[in-house]
Amino acid sequence: MPYNELRKDYLLNRWVVIAKERSRRPTDFAKQKTETAQTAVCPMCVGNEHMTPPAMMLYLKEDGGVKKSKDPLVGERPKNWLVRCIPNLYPAFSSPRQPEDETQIMKSECFGYAIGHHEVIIESPNHDEDPADAELPQLELVIKAYIDRLRELSAKPYVKYVSIFRNYGREAGASLSHAHSQIIATPMVPSIIQEELEASKAFYDKHGKCVFCDIIEQEVKGPRFVLENNDFIVFAPYASINPMAFWIMPKKHALSILDLTRPEVSAFAQTLKASLKALKDLVNDPPYNYGFHLAINKEAKDHYHWHLEVYPKLSIWAGFEISTGTYINTITPETAADSLRKAIKP
Amino acid sequence: MPYNELRKDYLLNRWVVIAKERSRRPTDFAKQKTETAQTAVCPMCVGNEHMTPPAMMLYLKEDGGVKKSKDPLVGERPKNWLVRCIPNLYPAFSSPRQPEDETQIMKSECFGYAIGHHEVIIESPNHDEDPADAELPQLELVIKAYIDRLRELSAKPYVKYVSIFRNYGREAGASLSHAHSQIIATPMVPSIIQEELEASKAFYDKHGKCVFCDIIEQEVKGPRFVLENNDFIVFAPYASINPMAFWIMPKKHALSILDLTRPEVSAFAQTLKASLKALKDLVNDPPYNYGFHLAINKEAKDHYHWHLEVYPKLSIWAGFEISTGTYINTITPETAADSLRKAIKP
Repeated sequence: MPYNELRKDYLLNRWVVIAKERSRRPTDFAKQKTETAQTAVCPMCVGNEHMTPPAMMLYLKEDGGVKKSKDPLVGERPKNWLVRCIPNLYPAFSSPRQPEDETQIMKSECFGYAIGHHEVIIESPNHDEDPADAELPQLELVIKAYIDRLRELSAKPYVKYVSIFRNYGREAGASLSHAHSQIIATPMVPSIIQEELEASKAFYDKHGKCVFCDIIEQEVKGPRFVLENNDFIVFAPYASINPMAFWIMPKKHALSILDLTRPEVSAFAQTLKASLKALKDLVNDPPYNYGFHLAINKEAKDHYHWHLEVYPKLSIWAGFEISTGTYINTITPETAADSLRKAIKP
Repeated sequence: MPYNELRKDYLLNRWVVIAKERSRRPTDFAKQKTETAQTAVCPMCVGNEHMTPPAMMLYLKEDGGVKKSKDPLVGERPKNWLVRCIPNLYPAFSSPRQPEDETQIMKSECFGYAIGHHEVIIESPNHDEDPADAELPQLELVIKAYIDRLRELSAKPYVKYVSIFRNYGREAGASLSHAHSQIIATPMVPSIIQEELEASKAFYDKHGKCVFCDIIEQEVKGPRFVLENNDFIVFAPYASINPMAFWIMPKKHALSILDLTRPEVSAFAQTLKASLKALKDLVNDPPYNYGFHLAINKEAKDHYHWHLEVYPKLSIWAGFEISTGTYINTITPETAADSLRKAIKP
């Protein structure tokens, strides 16, 4: 067929043109590394703890082990941390100032105020730590921090969703270059998650099974397959809207990372590192974003299935994409998967 | 209230945080102009017509007037053009190669191939023409070209939507710097338009009037108002997802620009120029995208109402935005409107 393909997302009402006619290879996107603007002093580096608000959670290195703690409110802050979780200085969503606000937001998400939480997870004492090259024990700690914070935030009665995401590289929106992730807890379920929840519920009601489990079965044996181990599968989604995008999906049906066992945390760290390393090697360390898709409402437990979506920042969404919500992807997911598969280090 | 505001779009299930706590002024976004990479030879400039496919539509300057024509398929191409409409060399959507394909696509949008059209409108013989500074008669010709192409493309039985958009500046996705717009005709209705159609239909069924007419009534007297004349109103939408975004909406209830009279074309050109000029002056010539929202299905005539949306490219959508479909806007629409209103030249 002499046409570009037109694909619709597994679940979302979202279309993408897989533009074979202007098809590009992954290496076409490799570019000279741009200089990251270095701030004079990095507020996230060891020794500069006083430049940030006190950490609500710390993993400290003590007696050859790791101990969970938090910053003291007065006096000197510990410097022997491995991971530090602090409030965002400029929060998009802020915590309730008074109990009435909590009550209001529980009555209606349309209360109109961005009540919630906005936190930063400093992933390592090493300024330039990168999940693609990090030591596995350190990466496991980062994932444990995601889980700890998700557990605490999702238990709050006014929190309807918790978004855990990472921006890597200036072009992907990372304003500070020190390794960090962000967590935003919102008083409403964001639209993309809501649409996935509804579509997966409809699929479950009709077919009696989880649509994501079904997707795994399809993708594990197909041309978009990238990587598999006992616990996870990595694949390029059928209707990727970003060149080189891939998803990491747990084989175990679960709502969120709260259900991960210790070995699964370790397997997830390995899977994340291996796939990000393949992307880094292939495309000369490109900027990217990743974000978890998960559910905190237990009513979704039969039909929703958490996963991580990785979006390399290799193209610009312009007038067509912004005004229509339809995308043009110049690398087919099959090409992306094939090249990632070959770049995976054993 | 010590919180950021959380707003939902007039029609879409789309949320935005109006981030007052990290609120910025329009001038904070002004930056040094980046050098536009100049191609050695611009394929859109006068004299280089042979570098592009033949134009399917030309406005020629002849005998002191303007004549509609097209490029001859053999021999020399006219150089006395004012506006040139050519096929995109790397179309995202391509025209049907055989009649069976047209039939297939009419049976199902899920046919799976990106059949449609992708055209480029070269807006002027002047390489650097910019709607903010263009002469009004030239800008009127551009709008007439939009109308002419929309009329032809929307009449094709396999076309379900026609997106008309413009990318200004490299950071906004303009890969060539010569003044141009693009038109993409698709075999399906894109999701954002579909959602607007459904929500405006629901509003009409419930209230017996057009929701956009209602929005105009609200916004014309409110803090987000920018500009008004006999035919159009310009305002910053209540839940803008881009800093400094504004919409141009016709007071006359109509499905698309096909209904514009000659004086309305002229008024639209003036409105577009005045508001883009205000943006340019305020924020030091920022990159932007604009896109029309319109309907070609006459069944929507009671409840849908065309408009133009302008999206200045002043922030990066990162992990949170991409994974959740929820946005953070660091300029309130009220601040945007106020500063645009003051920057409008009479």
